[in-house]
Amino acid sequence: MGALNAAKLATLAVLLSSALQPVLGQHFQRLGTCPTLGCILPPDLTDFYPGQLFDVRLEVHAPVNGSEAFNDGKVNDRFTFCIERSAGGGHDKRAESGHGNDDGHGSNNGHGNGSGNGCEDAARFFGVKEPALEKWSFTYFEDLFAQDANQPTVVNVASKAYRGVQLSKPGSYSAVLTFNGKSQTVARWTVRTASNKRKAKNVLFFIGDGMTQSMITAARLIGHKSINGRYQTLMQLDQMDAMGVQMTHSIDSFITDSANSATALFSGKKSTVSALNVWVDSSANSFDDPKMETIGELFKRKRKGGALGIVSTAIIGDATPAAICGHTRNRDEEGAIVFEYLNSPEAINATFNWPTGCQQPDVILGGGAELFLPNHSSWQGQDMYKAFQKKGYQVVFDAHALEKANTKDRTLGIFTVGNMAVWVDRNVLPQNLKGKKTSPNGDGTDAVNQPGLKDMTLKAIDILHERSKGNGWFMMSEAASIDKMMHVLDYDRALGELLELDDTVKATIQHLEKMGEMDDTLIIVTADHGHGFDVFGNADTKYLSAQNTDHTKRRAVGTYQTSGLSEFQVAPGSLPQNDTIVFGPQGPNFPVQWQPRYKLAAGFGANPDHRENYKLELNGPRLPAISGGSGVALNPQDNPDGFTVQGTLALTESQGVHSLTDVSIFAHGAGAEAFRGVQNNIDIFYKVADALGLGD
Amino acid sequence: MGALNAAKLATLAVLLSSALQPVLGQHFQRLGTCPTLGCILPPDLTDFYPGQLFDVRLEVHAPVNGSEAFNDGKVNDRFTFCIERSAGGGHDKRAESGHGNDDGHGSNNGHGNGSGNGCEDAARFFGVKEPALEKWSFTYFEDLFAQDANQPTVVNVASKAYRGVQLSKPGSYSAVLTFNGKSQTVARWTVRTASNKRKAKNVLFFIGDGMTQSMITAARLIGHKSINGRYQTLMQLDQMDAMGVQMTHSIDSFITDSANSATALFSGKKSTVSALNVWVDSSANSFDDPKMETIGELFKRKRKGGALGIVSTAIIGDATPAAICGHTRNRDEEGAIVFEYLNSPEAINATFNWPTGCQQPDVILGGGAELFLPNHSSWQGQDMYKAFQKKGYQVVFDAHALEKANTKDRTLGIFTVGNMAVWVDRNVLPQNLKGKKTSPNGDGTDAVNQPGLKDMTLKAIDILHERSKGNGWFMMSEAASIDKMMHVLDYDRALGELLELDDTVKATIQHLEKMGEMDDTLIIVTADHGHGFDVFGNADTKYLSAQNTDHTKRRAVGTYQTSGLSEFQVAPGSLPQNDTIVFGPQGPNFPVQWQPRYKLAAGFGANPDHRENYKLELNGPRLPAISGGSGVALNPQDNPDGFTVQGTLALTESQGVHSLTDVSIFAHGAGAEAFRGVQNNIDIFYKVADALGLGD
Repeated sequence: MGALNAAKLATLAVLLSSALQPVLGQHFQRLGTCPTLGCILPPDLTDFYPGQLFDVRLEVHAPVNGSEAFNDGKVNDRFTFCIERSAGGGHDKRAESGHGNDDGHGSNNGHGNGSGNGCEDAARFFGVKEPALEKWSFTYFEDLFAQDANQPTVVNVASKAYRGVQLSKPGSYSAVLTFNGKSQTVARWTVRTASNKRKAKNVLFFIGDGMTQSMITAARLIGHKSINGRYQTLMQLDQMDAMGVQMTHSIDSFITDSANSATALFSGKKSTVSALNVWVDSSANSFDDPKMETIGELFKRKRKGGALGIVSTAIIGDATPAAICGHTRNRDEEGAIVFEYLNSPEAINATFNWPTGCQQPDVILGGGAELFLPNHSSWQGQDMYKAFQKKGYQVVFDAHALEKANTKDRTLGIFTVGNMAVWVDRNVLPQNLKGKKTSPNGDGTDAVNQPGLKDMTLKAIDILHERSKGNGWFMMSEAASIDKMMHVLDYDRALGELLELDDTVKATIQHLEKMGEMDDTLIIVTADHGHGFDVFGNADTKYLSAQNTDHTKRRAVGTYQTSGLSEFQVAPGSLPQNDTIVFGPQGPNFPVQWQPRYKLAAGFGANPDHRENYKLELNGPRLPAISGGSGVALNPQDNPDGFTVQGTLALTESQGVHSLTDVSIFAHGAGAEAFRGVQNNIDIFYKVADALGLGD
Repeated sequence: MGALNAAKLATLAVLLSSALQPVLGQHFQRLGTCPTLGCILPPDLTDFYPGQLFDVRLEVHAPVNGSEAFNDGKVNDRFTFCIERSAGGGHDKRAESGHGNDDGHGSNNGHGNGSGNGCEDAARFFGVKEPALEKWSFTYFEDLFAQDANQPTVVNVASKAYRGVQLSKPGSYSAVLTFNGKSQTVARWTVRTASNKRKAKNVLFFIGDGMTQSMITAARLIGHKSINGRYQTLMQLDQMDAMGVQMTHSIDSFITDSANSATALFSGKKSTVSALNVWVDSSANSFDDPKMETIGELFKRKRKGGALGIVSTAIIGDATPAAICGHTRNRDEEGAIVFEYLNSPEAINATFNWPTGCQQPDVILGGGAELFLPNHSSWQGQDMYKAFQKKGYQVVFDAHALEKANTKDRTLGIFTVGNMAVWVDRNVLPQNLKGKKTSPNGDGTDAVNQPGLKDMTLKAIDILHERSKGNGWFMMSEAASIDKMMHVLDYDRALGELLELDDTVKATIQHLEKMGEMDDTLIIVTADHGHGFDVFGNADTKYLSAQNTDHTKRRAVGTYQTSGLSEFQVAPGSLPQNDTIVFGPQGPNFPVQWQPRYKLAAGFGANPDHRENYKLELNGPRLPAISGGSGVALNPQDNPDGFTVQGTLALTESQGVHSLTDVSIFAHGAGAEAFRGVQNNIDIFYKVADALGLGD
């Protein structure tokens, strides 16, 4: 923290006391999970899978100034922490002054916690040494006015962390922090009951990053032929055994990012924007936040001989693939995330009492060569290709080598620097892959022969199948650039990615059926969050370009009856009412043409300033807005013949942003019915773990 | 049509022939369902419930000019039409030159159609007289360039219509129009197989007009308390027995309006924007378009003693309630729609061979007094209150009278001129009901005592229950102003309507359980279409108002981690992390406060120019944009302290518009499981008819 002198603080105190209802002004949270000055992580209403590893962090706060200023900022480090197992199942309303209700049946399981004698000291309860006391300070702004005035609130902290503990017996627990004398914070924890019955030998968990039902609707419209309102073919997603929706909001904000929501999906815990499988504490260190065990770690620890695969079209250290194994509050620590594929958290800090980790996933395929090449963004500048090879990985760099790779060895496939090229560029405008110098081996040539999601997923299945020797496998496969293309308002490319995902799911089901594995496999397809995208009409791109003012250009947008029919599924030169079914060069499941005169008019409520002409961008993904003198501004290169849309976002945002909407979940195969209806994103972790029979 | 002289047409022909690929330019369709010059309505790929009444319209077109100009505009009226029943089930690819495939099992049912002898003349097949030949002309513009140049295409038409026919035997039919010599159009029709097993005695079909899963997500956020990412209560919609999604696009445009989509839901037929239970022909008359029998008509005809109810918070002649009984291509014919509640289509035109109609629904509750008061917008200026009373209706005008009304008589409740006041105004800002002079009895007083959707729905259940005497009932209950408030970008009021719908569904289930009827009742909740609404963050309304420029105001929008937590569920003066559960004055299921400092930042991709300050509009629903000299412009009265958002719509649009997205469907009770997964909106009609056991 920066030091604030007494004079400054006095001024601040006056300012605050003169403000009307200062507490009401607070918006940026001191610590998202901590409404009082005593904080427990895991916070109130956390659920666990039986035996799932986790860390505990306690913090006692003494704000020096601000609306919660306490005891002149002197932190009281004499706090105590105890845990009690209470009556099984369900959440009771938080008891504000203590926990009570000891019904005496707190008998213990094999992991040594719970004596049945009321609230037991946590170190004894968990069977670990009493942790050392830690102290630090941090600052935050209470709201935008405070930020504009550069008047931070300073908070002094005393803390302890219990590492690598677990709760094995299903039921309700009360974790009680007593601080500042008689103040108490009670966190209600629940260990869910695990099914003993394994339903699925294998789980393939597809993520369409940022994918909403609105996008699926639009992708269906451009990828499938409709006659008189009746689709002649459907998406694979339309034909899955079960569907539902999931709520994506995070623990301390109602809009999530991909790290935060992937944590929910893959470890069953609500967390915070940018956090990967940790609850965010207030310390500065990105690696000391309390962790929770992921599905990847749990699967490798519990399913002996099981094989683990991670596939993404993004940088393989990006948030979604990172969440299978990684632990950090800062998703930008991508070098460390790659390091964590090979090493347990103990390799980062020996005190972490966390020896297992993901134990080297059997297949890792995606982008992000910069995280592997020595002296780039890799962990401590190491040559991570070599580190992987030392652990027995075969390393491949292009689609051809992937196809030829053997299916018996651990496999690392890195196909480009940065995120992989998108489907539209790979298949419709391949010239856009040239001149990028993104070859994954670092030789400065172009990565022109990148595999698609389907190629990667099918090869990964073959490798996992062989390596697991009948013990089963878990794979996460991500269509990452649905999100990345929506961020840059490149609707065409985003929908191309979604259609590639659907095509991949279809091919996967066919492949598993051929292998005789489909009946033993659960396939899930869902998203981590949405973008507020929807199609609201068509745009006559020819008319739009031919007009000279924003207002006349906007006439090109047809709504309701003048939205007409999609031209993406008719051969160039035919009318959309034409009922002939034809295929484009990429075959079924994709548009017949990508540049019809009448395109989709679509957009978001959340935008930077930008221009729209609704044409396919021919030179690679769009860049709608760029940084300028006073913040983000229109990119003069983007859609110069389009009309201007003034945005709704702060001028620090050059892209669209995520949205609140529930996202769809589709399931197929063994145990699919569990995913029907409305659910919280964390529920999915428990259902997957149960389908795999990972209960103690 | 306006006459075009020969010189003008010659000029047009030159213009068109010099244009590159004139056919490609065509976008505004000649007749949406008719890719060639010979048109059959019902069009290709229409499905029917066994015995469902419908009309057939044939049209042969001869365009005088334009890209399809034919035979100098001379129409050939020697066309023939035949029908053949072919192999059962499924759609084959359209046979472009004939129909073939007579498998000889075209044996007939009790309704006299199908001889089994190949393609049979349609009049004989249907057992009706050969229809008279009709002729007319119409014009349309092929695209925006033609419209700007005022160069319409003129089409001459020859036509016949077969009225009040039906197909009773399940299976596939080919309807073949032979025209212009040897040209043929083949429409593949399917009569679906009806279940003989009645699953539900009663069906309550809720429509949340314009409601998407994104709106449900936002409504959940403001109506229910979340602690650390876990909701402490859920919406009733989150807890229904089954959920799925439905595709809403229409027959000839991918964006629908409410008339068109209600037609799909209530008669199982794809149609056209603005059309109610007709396929749109090219004639000028709004009442001669070919009709299809609705769920209301079918239920009253097949279920002897069954009772029918229609409830809406809109004008009761508005598109969604209108679609239970009405038949017109023009939803604005609201006077006629009210007339059709009391009278069959034969009362409009004696040649229509359609004697049944809805047979006076047992309950009609909603707004729209102007359609009943004499010399207002009523049918032929009649006093429709009197007309209803003559048919035995008790008529009520306010919530008190509705509560007191007996449950044995047919009941008409009309509670205001225009649409009913919305939940927020009725419950939070009741002063907004004053000074409107919208009393339903026409006395110029204010309609201050309007019932809510819950009051109307529960009372209607009681009336239907008593009147049906155990024979079962069908009710449609619509939360109309989710849509109407979204159109005017009044997110607060729209979400209030959605929460009222959810509260109504919850109370309905409790009421039916108390009555012992829930096990015999199927409840459906779905929408007719969406708006591209989503929440993308919060807005610090205090900070926003305090800034002076659009750009600094936009800083008030917090995204991701700075979206924070919702303040709608905390008592004023508390922080959103506060985990105390409190209720507001409207009880659970609604916000505790409607005007917190931190509001939702939300919006659409489709907007008129408007301003956003994200505050609750205190003076009644928003009016974001108004008509000005050169088209729609900012309303200076709307959010004067907000920032300007330049829109994306043509300057003829003063409101937001509908969107493409699939909408959710929820079902509860008897037969709910049929509504799981991804379906077309027309499928819902067949599932409801089947649940009610309306098969022959």
